[in-house]
Amino acid sequence: MALTHLDDSGKARMVDISAKSATKRQAVCEGFIRMSAGARTAIAAGEVPKGDVLAAARIAGIMAAKKTSELIPLCHPLPLTSVTVDFSMTDDGVRVEASAATTFGTGVEMEAMTAVTTALLTIYDMAKAVDKAMRIDGLRLLSKTGGKSGPWRAPDEC
Amino acid sequence: MALTHLDDSGKARMVDISAKSATKRQAVCEGFIRMSAGARTAIAAGEVPKGDVLAAARIAGIMAAKKTSELIPLCHPLPLTSVTVDFSMTDDGVRVEASAATTFGTGVEMEAMTAVTTALLTIYDMAKAVDKAMRIDGLRLLSKTGGKSGPWRAPDEC
Amino acid sequence: MALTHLDDSGKARMVDISAKSATKRQAVCEGFIRMSAGARTAIAAGEVPKGDVLAAARIAGIMAAKKTSELIPLCHPLPLTSVTVDFSMTDDGVRVEASAATTFGTGVEMEAMTAVTTALLTIYDMAKAVDKAMRIDGLRLLSKTGGKSGPWRAPDEC
Amino acid sequence: MALTHLDDSGKARMVDISAKSATKRQAVCEGFIRMSAGARTAIAAGEVPKGDVLAAARIAGIMAAKKTSELIPLCHPLPLTSVTVDFSMTDDGVRVEASAATTFGTGVEMEAMTAVTTALLTIYDMAKAVDKAMRIDGLRLLSKTGGKSGPWRAPDEC
Amino acid sequence: MALTHLDDSGKARMVDISAKSATKRQAVCEGFIRMSAGARTAIAAGEVPKGDVLAAARIAGIMAAKKTSELIPLCHPLPLTSVTVDFSMTDDGVRVEASAATTFGTGVEMEAMTAVTTALLTIYDMAKAVDKAMRIDGLRLLSKTGGKSGPWRAPDEC
Amino acid sequence: MALTHLDDSGKARMVDISAKSATKRQAVCEGFIRMSAGARTAIAAGEVPKGDVLAAARIAGIMAAKKTSELIPLCHPLPLTSVTVDFSMTDDGVRVEASAATTFGTGVEMEAMTAVTTALLTIYDMAKAVDKAMRIDGLRLLSKTGGKSGPWRAPDEC
Repeated sequence: MALTHLDDSGKARMVDISAKSATKRQAVCEGFIRMSAGARTAIAAGEVPKGDVLAAARIAGIMAAKKTSELIPLCHPLPLTSVTVDFSMTDDGVRVEASAATTFGTGVEMEAMTAVTTALLTIYDMAKAVDKAMRIDGLRLLSKTGGKSGPWRAPDEC
Repeated sequence: MALTHLDDSGKARMVDISAKSATKRQAVCEGFIRMSAGARTAIAAGEVPKGDVLAAARIAGIMAAKKTSELIPLCHPLPLTSVTVDFSMTDDGVRVEASAATTFGTGVEMEAMTAVTTALLTIYDMAKAVDKAMRIDGLRLLSKTGGKSGPWRAPDEC
Repeated sequence: MALTHLDDSGKARMVDISAKSATKRQAVCEGFIRMSAGARTAIAAGEVPKGDVLAAARIAGIMAAKKTSELIPLCHPLPLTSVTVDFSMTDDGVRVEASAATTFGTGVEMEAMTAVTTALLTIYDMAKAVDKAMRIDGLRLLSKTGGKSGPWRAPDEC
Repeated sequence: MALTHLDDSGKARMVDISAKSATKRQAVCEGFIRMSAGARTAIAAGEVPKGDVLAAARIAGIMAAKKTSELIPLCHPLPLTSVTVDFSMTDDGVRVEASAATTFGTGVEMEAMTAVTTALLTIYDMAKAVDKAMRIDGLRLLSKTGGKSGPWRAPDEC
Repeated sequence: MALTHLDDSGKARMVDISAKSATKRQAVCEGFIRMSAGARTAIAAGEVPKGDVLAAARIAGIMAAKKTSELIPLCHPLPLTSVTVDFSMTDDGVRVEASAATTFGTGVEMEAMTAVTTALLTIYDMAKAVDKAMRIDGLRLLSKTGGKSGPWRAPDEC
Repeated sequence: MALTHLDDSGKARMVDISAKSATKRQAVCEGFIRMSAGARTAIAAGEVPKGDVLAAARIAGIMAAKKTSELIPLCHPLPLTSVTVDFSMTDDGVRVEASAATTFGTGVEMEAMTAVTTALLTIYDMAKAVDKAMRIDGLRLLSKTGGKSGPWRAPDEC
């Protein structure tokens, strides 16, 4: 199966979506950051009641979603109609879930992926003085809806 | 141990580095993208002899390193003196390694992390028509040098 | 009355406008910069016949309107169809009025506000060598049209 | 007294600072947003214990300070070493104070002004569904230190 | 004939396109870079089989097309649906051809021009260590389609 | 002679300038836009006494110089200390000359080239309703000073 971002001679291009219909499209992604107990405690403590840690990561994720087409060379600029970024503490760190939506001729997986990634990197940045061995894992698409190919869910999410 | 990006009342701030000395600082990071055999083949085939896939991901990673302080709220803008992004095919996908360097009053871990991340997201974008279940894993710092805290290596890298 | 940019648990989000209809929307804002007689004279003299002061401020305001969604975290990116920035000399400085328009599912108040603000900051920047005690005042929305809530005018403008 | 951002024929230019020495420079600015009691209550309530309102405005202000040279045409890009943004509730709204610092050949007033302004615009954005008649006032420089011209304080601050 | 980007008093403005219909619009542009035989050989050699030179220039051109409205003060931001950048070696350098497309109320000539220009500047950057006397020439619009004024072709292209 | 932006295997990289000394560096570039008599008259008329055409192009050129490292993939971000953009009317259009300066470990040719280019594209944008057959020509480096390789002048400028 061919990569759609390459033309017949293997040159990169921005895929022509002129003929695609503008329908509502949505994507949900997730990712994890694993860290030491000390770093996790510092973030969790920072969260309630006073902290700015996850608030900063949320804002960073939302703002980054809007920058997706500046970061990913072949992504189309598109009018995002919604972005959300949510956090939950896990046993060894934080889980981030982001959703993005648009009404346009192409999907928003990359916008949701970029939101999750940037939120995770922001947490990493804020905790790296405490733990240099943190690890970002499990970044993936959970589901998408809209577009010609119809809805899709990650196999273990069905 | 406290998070340095929060002040005493838990408010986010850009840490004051005025008093830090401008020394040469370097960081190396890695990350992986795991994918189906079909997607891996399409990328590997695209790489030699004609393709733009990894070339696009490399450029995206280098350009994103320069945008780090626009993406990560509390990162300082800094004069990057070097950025490299390298790829190797793994059994189930691609490994990305990036390095960044500066002569400044703060480290460049986030720049190297952002380069790896964006290169991985670019590969993801270019292969997602072939495989929607790809997964980005193992994003982490391998080593850093320079600065008051001295050199650091990931435990399993020593 | 609740803030629409926060969800039920107080977390920031980009409001979902997927279901809103794309209608023509317009907004007009104003703001003032007050300064010493010397600074005011330098700017007024610069304006006619040769100067670039207000021309630079106008361009800065128009370009900033296009950056609104990069600056204001929860603003939607939107396709601006028109931006104007106008100046008039007042007794103690300059008045800036800006308008913005779009055909989209959300309003353009923030785009007009950002245009006025950045034009004022540009004047401030260009005159600050002459007067460090300048003051920006009276930044507000004058009117908006379009959208479900219908037209609105500032009370003293009706 | 001439405007330094115009050359002898009135053309805009970026002032040449090659010959200026890189010394530590700092600036502090303030600004106010005035609003209805309802909007003020919604923000204050949002702040404690759960809210993201002022956290979002703080992050927006810090990130905007880093964008100053992209917004203000004749500002030099400079390596910010510190940015802080603080809020206090006033009788009729919110006061924002921001500081910026660098070690460079030119001052950071515009960076601090841009931080205050963008934080205020972010509050405006988040409260505008509740109150369309808000007003931003009293944006000004409180003090600056460093550079050839020496320290300066707003007259009523001395 | 008047310049549409100036109002009646000669002030710059973003032309109001609210009333224009969103139709498919396309533009094709070309440009040349002329260089020494040595620089030309280095680039051509770099291209096949291993090189990143033209791949980098292609990505840079595509990404710059998306930044057009940030660079050209009075350009409208618009949803690009397609961008392509192609190269051919000439006797004394490289020819770049770029196309852009959108479905919107204004044309995409500037997007195609910006893609060509930035691709040429990227080649210039990568070859300037070998040849400082390179020259960029012949940047122009080849054809445009869509919009009220109908199709247009450069005279010598008809 | 090898291209410095490619490593031994032809992969793009940001050249490591850590070991280069920060000296004052300057570059001057020029470029031309050729147009119909009608377009030339409209711009010249717009310039004196009231117009914004060349003022807009000047601001665009200065602001673009600051964006050089965002546009040209392998350019280092650097602290520009000066940028100027000047215009003169020619028989068949406009000549643009731009200079850039920094005190850093690498040159500023690309910053001056980007300033000239963007100023020319801005003129193009503002005059394209009058003349679609305009042509940008003769973009080149006139001189550079500073750095290990010493001063350089275009052969016909010596």
